[in-house]
Amino acid sequence: MNGAFRVRTTGDAPEDRLAALGLTLPALRPAAGSYRGYVQAGDLLFLAGQGADGWTGQVGTDLPVDRARLAARDCMLNLLAQTRDALGALDRVRQVVKVLGFVACTPQFRDTPAVLDGASDLLVSVFGAEVGGHGRSAVGVAALPKGFAVEIEMVLQVRA
Amino acid sequence: MNGAFRVRTTGDAPEDRLAALGLTLPALRPAAGSYRGYVQAGDLLFLAGQGADGWTGQVGTDLPVDRARLAARDCMLNLLAQTRDALGALDRVRQVVKVLGFVACTPQFRDTPAVLDGASDLLVSVFGAEVGGHGRSAVGVAALPKGFAVEIEMVLQVRA
Amino acid sequence: MNGAFRVRTTGDAPEDRLAALGLTLPALRPAAGSYRGYVQAGDLLFLAGQGADGWTGQVGTDLPVDRARLAARDCMLNLLAQTRDALGALDRVRQVVKVLGFVACTPQFRDTPAVLDGASDLLVSVFGAEVGGHGRSAVGVAALPKGFAVEIEMVLQVRA
Repeated sequence: MNGAFRVRTTGDAPEDRLAALGLTLPALRPAAGSYRGYVQAGDLLFLAGQGADGWTGQVGTDLPVDRARLAARDCMLNLLAQTRDALGALDRVRQVVKVLGFVACTPQFRDTPAVLDGASDLLVSVFGAEVGGHGRSAVGVAALPKGFAVEIEMVLQVRA
Repeated sequence: MNGAFRVRTTGDAPEDRLAALGLTLPALRPAAGSYRGYVQAGDLLFLAGQGADGWTGQVGTDLPVDRARLAARDCMLNLLAQTRDALGALDRVRQVVKVLGFVACTPQFRDTPAVLDGASDLLVSVFGAEVGGHGRSAVGVAALPKGFAVEIEMVLQVRA
Repeated sequence: MNGAFRVRTTGDAPEDRLAALGLTLPALRPAAGSYRGYVQAGDLLFLAGQGADGWTGQVGTDLPVDRARLAARDCMLNLLAQTRDALGALDRVRQVVKVLGFVACTPQFRDTPAVLDGASDLLVSVFGAEVGGHGRSAVGVAALPKGFAVEIEMVLQVRA
């Protein structure tokens, strides 16, 4: 797709789609330790794990699934804020490649995919089904940084 | 290896090796949520996490290790079915790169590598030691989608 | 950076910086199962998860955070030993890309980033802030191979 002449109508840009959903990209969260929010290698952008402030506790006990979906969405907003910081604009994303999501929960919890859909659905809304479609794993874990309910990391492919 | 003239004797193809083990690739499982089974970026194929239907519970308590190895093998069969769907044939795999395996278990369980060997051994059997050899992590977690006992994701390098 | 003329003063090489910290690369640990310590695909080196012998138990209960940081550092030394084995010398690392760290802990533990900083700080000390800076996720899990307290995997970009 490099060098192709692209015309976009208003509302087609990922940032416009976010606005149409009533969402805005948050400020960049400071890293929780000695690492960066992202590193690019070739045309792959590797994004560090993002939680979402205000969403803590165990999903399924402290936090019901429908609320945890919002936590996952907010993790993704934090990832997209990092993406914009890395690339200047979201339309430089050529393809969302892989999402790895962690959900703090008890051994009885079976519905990590429904939680992560809060993040995946946002990707498809913002980038469309083709660019926004991605591989994913959704894992239930003992504990996340700062007691976060959800944490998500992501790999993107970037336009040259 | 691009452009090299390759001759294969019967039984050398990955699909033939699978058949010799008495195994066949299962039908593609539907995704558990808003994501795809795989996305290719450049020559890397990123495969979404796969569980295996029928294998649920906690390894070491509900499911002994020798049964959990079969669960891991069946996760890998699901991953290979996705791989064939992505590439058309398994011999387009140039190199298995990385396996990340999750095992549902209690904090007392210490043998996640033995479980994951059920998947890793299959890769080596099907692709040979060189192409099938891969890096791996094996992690014991609280809970997996649908109560799965094992879930595995994978990165492959693809022939041009 | 390929083809650039590089002059290094004594003490600038990653191995020298390690020595200045009083650290040496350990012998390669044997894989815990049917996998390899690393696989390179293009200019990306994917390293298998490494624990650290002698560091077992749950962080926050069996092992205090300041000790667990040393466990994370020792996991990274094992990863750097694998890196040297893969590349011949550590200065062939062009960029540390991504670290994924797992900490065995209870659901009450909130400080996985402080544990992983033991590994991240070493990367920055050895490679400098630019080359050593990396994306990261730090996840608290039920159980790791052999009862390890910490396990870390890593992706590096390699100089041509």
